[in-house]
Amino acid sequence: MGDFIIYNTLSRKKELFKPINPGHVGMYVCGPTVYGEAHLGHSRPAITFDLLFRYLKYLGYKVRYVRNITDVGHLVNDADEGDDKVEGKAKVEELEPMEIVQRYTNSYRRNMLQLNVLPPSIEPSASGHIIEQIETVQQMINSGFAYEVNNSVYFDVEKYASIHSYGILSGRKIEDLYSNTRDLDSQGEKKSGLDFAVWKNATPDHIMRWPSPWGYGFPGWHTECTAMSTKYLGEPFDIHGGGLDLLFPHHEAEIAQGVACFGHSPVNYWVHNNLITINGQKMGKSLGNFINLDQLFAGTHQLLEKAYSPMCIRFFILQAHYRSPLDFSNEALQAAEKGLERLFKAVTMIDGLKISDQSTIDVPGVIEKCDNAMNDDLNSPILIAHLFDGVKMINSVNDGKSTINSIDQAMLKKLYNDYVFDILGLQPDISGAGTENSKVFGQVVDLLLNLRIVAKKNKDWSTSDKIRNSLADLGFIVKDTKDGFEWELKG
Amino acid sequence: MGDFIIYNTLSRKKELFKPINPGHVGMYVCGPTVYGEAHLGHSRPAITFDLLFRYLKYLGYKVRYVRNITDVGHLVNDADEGDDKVEGKAKVEELEPMEIVQRYTNSYRRNMLQLNVLPPSIEPSASGHIIEQIETVQQMINSGFAYEVNNSVYFDVEKYASIHSYGILSGRKIEDLYSNTRDLDSQGEKKSGLDFAVWKNATPDHIMRWPSPWGYGFPGWHTECTAMSTKYLGEPFDIHGGGLDLLFPHHEAEIAQGVACFGHSPVNYWVHNNLITINGQKMGKSLGNFINLDQLFAGTHQLLEKAYSPMCIRFFILQAHYRSPLDFSNEALQAAEKGLERLFKAVTMIDGLKISDQSTIDVPGVIEKCDNAMNDDLNSPILIAHLFDGVKMINSVNDGKSTINSIDQAMLKKLYNDYVFDILGLQPDISGAGTENSKVFGQVVDLLLNLRIVAKKNKDWSTSDKIRNSLADLGFIVKDTKDGFEWELKG
Repeated sequence: MGDFIIYNTLSRKKELFKPINPGHVGMYVCGPTVYGEAHLGHSRPAITFDLLFRYLKYLGYKVRYVRNITDVGHLVNDADEGDDKVEGKAKVEELEPMEIVQRYTNSYRRNMLQLNVLPPSIEPSASGHIIEQIETVQQMINSGFAYEVNNSVYFDVEKYASIHSYGILSGRKIEDLYSNTRDLDSQGEKKSGLDFAVWKNATPDHIMRWPSPWGYGFPGWHTECTAMSTKYLGEPFDIHGGGLDLLFPHHEAEIAQGVACFGHSPVNYWVHNNLITINGQKMGKSLGNFINLDQLFAGTHQLLEKAYSPMCIRFFILQAHYRSPLDFSNEALQAAEKGLERLFKAVTMIDGLKISDQSTIDVPGVIEKCDNAMNDDLNSPILIAHLFDGVKMINSVNDGKSTINSIDQAMLKKLYNDYVFDILGLQPDISGAGTENSKVFGQVVDLLLNLRIVAKKNKDWSTSDKIRNSLADLGFIVKDTKDGFEWELKG
Repeated sequence: MGDFIIYNTLSRKKELFKPINPGHVGMYVCGPTVYGEAHLGHSRPAITFDLLFRYLKYLGYKVRYVRNITDVGHLVNDADEGDDKVEGKAKVEELEPMEIVQRYTNSYRRNMLQLNVLPPSIEPSASGHIIEQIETVQQMINSGFAYEVNNSVYFDVEKYASIHSYGILSGRKIEDLYSNTRDLDSQGEKKSGLDFAVWKNATPDHIMRWPSPWGYGFPGWHTECTAMSTKYLGEPFDIHGGGLDLLFPHHEAEIAQGVACFGHSPVNYWVHNNLITINGQKMGKSLGNFINLDQLFAGTHQLLEKAYSPMCIRFFILQAHYRSPLDFSNEALQAAEKGLERLFKAVTMIDGLKISDQSTIDVPGVIEKCDNAMNDDLNSPILIAHLFDGVKMINSVNDGKSTINSIDQAMLKKLYNDYVFDILGLQPDISGAGTENSKVFGQVVDLLLNLRIVAKKNKDWSTSDKIRNSLADLGFIVKDTKDGFEWELKG
């Protein structure tokens, strides 16, 4: 399965990937909190871990990919005193919380389908795993790292930090955390301001609550990922992914909870994607640059000059390395759009290339470079650069400046099928060109252009011009060639 | 909100629909058991209750529509000794049960989208509501209608039947049920063969199990619907739907459980769709006539002469009244296909009808008949017949044999928009004709046909014939009209 290297946030190093069970990979990724429409910020982790999921499968692994749906217990700013986010919205809209959850879960799934993000193997929801979370909390109490107070249960960070390393993942120092937290005076009923709720008491007016050994309540945000990841993947498991914004406190808390429950670190490889900025700014509702995916695909946000297709967004995100920051701008997206078009055009040309006895291009060299790029910590921008080297070769053969033999042609075809479609997950826009009807309509255009050739032969310039100008008005670009004509329809 | 009449299986009568909370409707429908691909049998309840959901919304109700996902606890043939169906398959495939569940849930949702079945407001899963089911079981024990034996809990049908009416929904007589059951010698640890498990003990090798007051186990099949319907809709709630195959024992058991838990019947209106046969036979895996929806849409089953589009299936199902049996055959489906085409064609003609000062057709009469048909127990076949009467009127105006004024044209347009698209949920095939590109290509055909007119004027018969014949070869049907031409592309 090759030598696949991945950067491990825990060790701060690139490491050779070795799964716990040969041939199998368990991967858990933090999914969306479903109390609003999916936005630009959701697209990057979804596409990053879709790339990893697809590449691991390409390498021959059987992957169980678990991505959760947070539909309860996500406390605002990790402030334990805050209301549950989902319920907050439900009260405003006078809806059952699960109705909100359903609406936005459907919307998220629809957007993921548009982005050609494969569904995970299991998509567990927090509200569907309350029993498992109660058991997790009980384990933390049993091991002495969590305590009950007023029907809530808190993780005892001070005690944990006295034995284990709290900050091992994020690199934060417990002393710094203490001084920050004490300033905020947010201790309340907790032993220390650093402690976080793993189970929170809820009064009867709180709709989303369940019975537990500590009375009616709901689980803390960090609890669900510990409970659900280990339920479906065992412990330890191979890969835990998420956005860099989740590094602290969420993932740090998950490690501490895992150690408290199982006596050992719960995850071997921690993988984090970097974040998205828009025109150099952080995304935020107050900044007016908070763009929903539906707005992006329809071009309906004031910052957008036009609509960008899901594939354009996907390609744009893959053109950057997942650990680099990525800035969205109209210019950058339009450049990605052109690049993607060029890539797809070359791919469709492979089948029709003229076959020679000898190749003057180095196909095996390109393949090796592509494999190396992906094996080096999923370096998709380098991969794409090499795929564009291949595009140059394809164009060069097509123009008669280079030659290709049939073996190389077959290898080239496999390369682009594997990387463009299967691994990068790019797919041509099928709204027009791909359908059966469009094929017929394309033949109508051919028919018309053949009539124009006849008209020209007959020196019937009026008809010939009329055909050319009318097609141009409709958006067709017609090029006269030696053999007749070529045309394309500008999108 | 009109006088909407619905047949209530419980009273065996058509009743005027009156919701418990004015303006709001709570509706619960038994969804799929997700241990296999969605098949023909799933399409009818999905479309029937989608029609009811859409019509109630059209009438102005705010509808909370809950449709569950059965992912655990569905015991084979309601035999309590049987293995859990989902887990049985998981063991064979060496997969985590929830991985199977996820795969088939995704597949079901995809098929529903294809059939233009609206997603329900809430789609709760049995595995996600174990706590609620444990509470339901506890209520049944508390009220004396359920008993524990060997860490399982059974519903005491004999005791229930001595006070309440077991058989009130299905019309079965308890005496007959006893004699049938005793013959089968299936009593086991139960007090009586009629008793059904509401919680079932599970040994450690059973993967899908949860802790409960009665030890580790899993809920009985009937338990989930009682727990989830009342959690999201309260009790009693308005409408409970499902296929006739669920009438007994499932829905009968739900009534008994509801009475045991709440002291009163849990549902006001019970609505059941009739079943599907194929060429006159019941569907069954052993009969070789078990057709998956994907097979149906792709035409890949041996019984199918061709592929049938999801809209053809939808229209076919709506052409029968939901309480009548429905037989699938190639002939019947192909007839539905033609009818649907004729309907859509007429709808697209409404906008272009020539407006006169007077109408010679009775549009308000058609509208009233359509409303009356739907208000009479969702009589979609009668509705469709009236819509076809309207089609005749549209064609007659188009042919100049009748006239329409602008008010009637607007009403006709609203009628077809409301009924064809919003209520029947039919949508034209958008793979070709609806897209932006196709519009442009349509203009290319127009361009070509205008050239033909010029050629004819110039008596250039060779060009004129060439255009006509070439278009005919490509499948276009061209009709010369007074104003120029009309064309259509044969699918």
